[in-house]
Amino acid sequence: MSNAGEDRTKKWYEVSIKVARNYGGKVSMMPKVPIKGLRDFSIYYTPGVAGVSLEISKNPDLSFELTWRWNAIAVLTDGTRVLGLGNVGPEAALPVMEGKALIFKYLGGVDAIPLPIRVKSKEEFVAVAKAIEPSFGGINLEDIESPKCFYLLETLRRELNIPVWHDDQQGTAGAILAGLYNALKVVDKKLTGVRIVLFGAGASNIAAAEVLHTAGVPYENMTLIDSKGPLHADREDMDKLMLNNPWKYNLALKTNKERHKTIEEAMNGADVLISASTPGPGIIKKDWVRLMNKDSIVFALANPVPEIWPWEAKEAGARVVATGRSDFPNQINNSLIFPSVFRGALDVRARAISNEVIVAVAREIAKYAEERGISEDYIIPTMEEWEVYPRAAAAAAVEIVNEGLARVSTTYREELERAREIIAKARASMEKLMREGLIREIPAELVR
Amino acid sequence: MSNAGEDRTKKWYEVSIKVARNYGGKVSMMPKVPIKGLRDFSIYYTPGVAGVSLEISKNPDLSFELTWRWNAIAVLTDGTRVLGLGNVGPEAALPVMEGKALIFKYLGGVDAIPLPIRVKSKEEFVAVAKAIEPSFGGINLEDIESPKCFYLLETLRRELNIPVWHDDQQGTAGAILAGLYNALKVVDKKLTGVRIVLFGAGASNIAAAEVLHTAGVPYENMTLIDSKGPLHADREDMDKLMLNNPWKYNLALKTNKERHKTIEEAMNGADVLISASTPGPGIIKKDWVRLMNKDSIVFALANPVPEIWPWEAKEAGARVVATGRSDFPNQINNSLIFPSVFRGALDVRARAISNEVIVAVAREIAKYAEERGISEDYIIPTMEEWEVYPRAAAAAAVEIVNEGLARVSTTYREELERAREIIAKARASMEKLMREGLIREIPAELVR
Repeated sequence: MSNAGEDRTKKWYEVSIKVARNYGGKVSMMPKVPIKGLRDFSIYYTPGVAGVSLEISKNPDLSFELTWRWNAIAVLTDGTRVLGLGNVGPEAALPVMEGKALIFKYLGGVDAIPLPIRVKSKEEFVAVAKAIEPSFGGINLEDIESPKCFYLLETLRRELNIPVWHDDQQGTAGAILAGLYNALKVVDKKLTGVRIVLFGAGASNIAAAEVLHTAGVPYENMTLIDSKGPLHADREDMDKLMLNNPWKYNLALKTNKERHKTIEEAMNGADVLISASTPGPGIIKKDWVRLMNKDSIVFALANPVPEIWPWEAKEAGARVVATGRSDFPNQINNSLIFPSVFRGALDVRARAISNEVIVAVAREIAKYAEERGISEDYIIPTMEEWEVYPRAAAAAAVEIVNEGLARVSTTYREELERAREIIAKARASMEKLMREGLIREIPAELVR
Repeated sequence: MSNAGEDRTKKWYEVSIKVARNYGGKVSMMPKVPIKGLRDFSIYYTPGVAGVSLEISKNPDLSFELTWRWNAIAVLTDGTRVLGLGNVGPEAALPVMEGKALIFKYLGGVDAIPLPIRVKSKEEFVAVAKAIEPSFGGINLEDIESPKCFYLLETLRRELNIPVWHDDQQGTAGAILAGLYNALKVVDKKLTGVRIVLFGAGASNIAAAEVLHTAGVPYENMTLIDSKGPLHADREDMDKLMLNNPWKYNLALKTNKERHKTIEEAMNGADVLISASTPGPGIIKKDWVRLMNKDSIVFALANPVPEIWPWEAKEAGARVVATGRSDFPNQINNSLIFPSVFRGALDVRARAISNEVIVAVAREIAKYAEERGISEDYIIPTMEEWEVYPRAAAAAAVEIVNEGLARVSTTYREELERAREIIAKARASMEKLMREGLIREIPAELVR
């Protein structure tokens, strides 16, 4: 990173710390029922609440109707891979989970509880997630090291009866796919026909490969590249991979049919590069992009600095370039995905969120941008385009219902209305609290 | 219970269910920081939040300054003894925990997360509580069957570095002690000199015996009575008790020095009866109360109907009578205790809440009532007397500091101000949300 970039980041750090100290965190619990006096607790607490308990004891699924469970999720982490910081532990993960909870509410109207936990093994993580299942309508896994995150997601998706989502995998994969749909339209290529190089084989690109496959990309059209070069079935570390990271191993078996052994071989003639690796610049070389097919697409998603600057990629022949940053065109951002996916999943009381749901949501988000007019510099909506969230929620809900993974049914139109109303209400409450001075403005000296 | 009582309870049940369905539960997550647009997430989320994480990773205790942890507790249960309903399971416990969270906010300004869990053993319960420790400033255990609750409280108090409280034990014990202090003043007797019968040997009376001992009552002045009669060191089931309920066993060894073998023997000449057993009436006989010493004190705490009606106890010679009900004088109510104890404990970032803290809080609550003028019909404040909460919080905080169990220091005056401000702010926010129509009135047809 440049010195200017470092200085700017340091400045953000300082402001964030000061603001965190000033407010004592970012979220709080609030009643959503009126309390006029202590007599009301006869309804909310004893004796009345025993009636609610009895009702649920006869049918535990009624907990989705008679408690906040219908809208409550846990943002669960063990703090082993927090942002780019690594294994900083659960306490240090808490401010990040709180920030995520804030986004969940602001963009999805979801009640998300920050829940970093201290566990010694992946089995213990699973035990905690299973234990808390009755309290929540879903679990959002976050900032967990790889390959543990694959094991956790797979195990919990299988064993829990509420949706479990790992945002660093599925959220990012969904955003990638949404952007890719429109990028391909811009360059007039077909998803099923393109050759795709996935640079980096961590949580998001492993998940992206699987979601791309669900969307119709044959495995043999993809090549994953990790720190040792392209993955393929003959690589000398395959035995080790099989033991330590079966998810990567399986992709090594199925992808890169032509057994490209160097990055240059893999890039040669590729149509799409999706890089989710180390902050740049200079991680992706211009020479590699030059090897790609005509009208190539480059997603350089590392934060805070993409693996290659967008203008460099363009100079090297890329036609559509996307990054993870909001200050360049085409931000591939999982914040477009997770609030709406959970909104939709919660509204149909989903038992799970499949990869097909991610594809349906990506397709809806792409469609939204397409309706507004796509171009090389606009392949995906920005976070400011609010209308996309209820639409994505509706697409998620309908797909979940169609797959038989929902406890209650809905239609696209119905969920669109419902999601709009819930999100609008969440935002209206906040604005009211601000306007009434109950949430104070950030003191000017803190951000100076 | 009378038919009229049953009808009334059924009515409360119906209203509660309708209201729960109407609002979809009782609590929600809300931001406490201003959000004017997505740019603010550069402070609350990436890139800024990484700075907060880094800061905490250097010193995990900073999580109490830079996140909501300073004010957040879990209301944790396995749903094995929910109200009077028994083992109804975690889903059915959720509405009760939500109600408790509502009270925590309304009376103590505390952010309490309802957290019913599904666990197979007490060891698994301990594992979950230890896992979630980094997310919270305290844990309130609730509605857990006895004797498991004693094991859990003891183990978690020892192994966790945040306060763990079992409200059915300590909250009730604190309220009993507060009432008893003033009842004894009314009849002009000394705590250290009276003979006390504890009728019922479940969570609350076992805890009450220990807290009374901490307050200065010699064990030998107390007699506990369970379904088999008075506990004493020679009872034939002592071997079984030693294995199954060492807490009860230890009290059997130390209390009832005179080896009373029948209820009548135990009651004969007793000064105080504290009954926490089965709903009445008719559980405590008038004849038993007649056997008590002059100016006797009777606490009949079962809900919804006390073990003996207050007027019956009075007819039998009791001078001061208390119940668990708000519609009779002298309500012994743990809602007077838990919101303030946690307010005080959180404000000094306590590592634990000792029995001495409970005594200090009970003494402060008693003192508050005494200042307003105690009598046979007013030995303890009602929940409506708001001023008592910050005072009890201040007493708790100071005692925790004095015992060296606090992470930060405070004075009585300072904590009184702080607690007042936090509780007032919590209530003001709710009122504002109601006034602005963001929390709607209960529709009249639901409570008709």
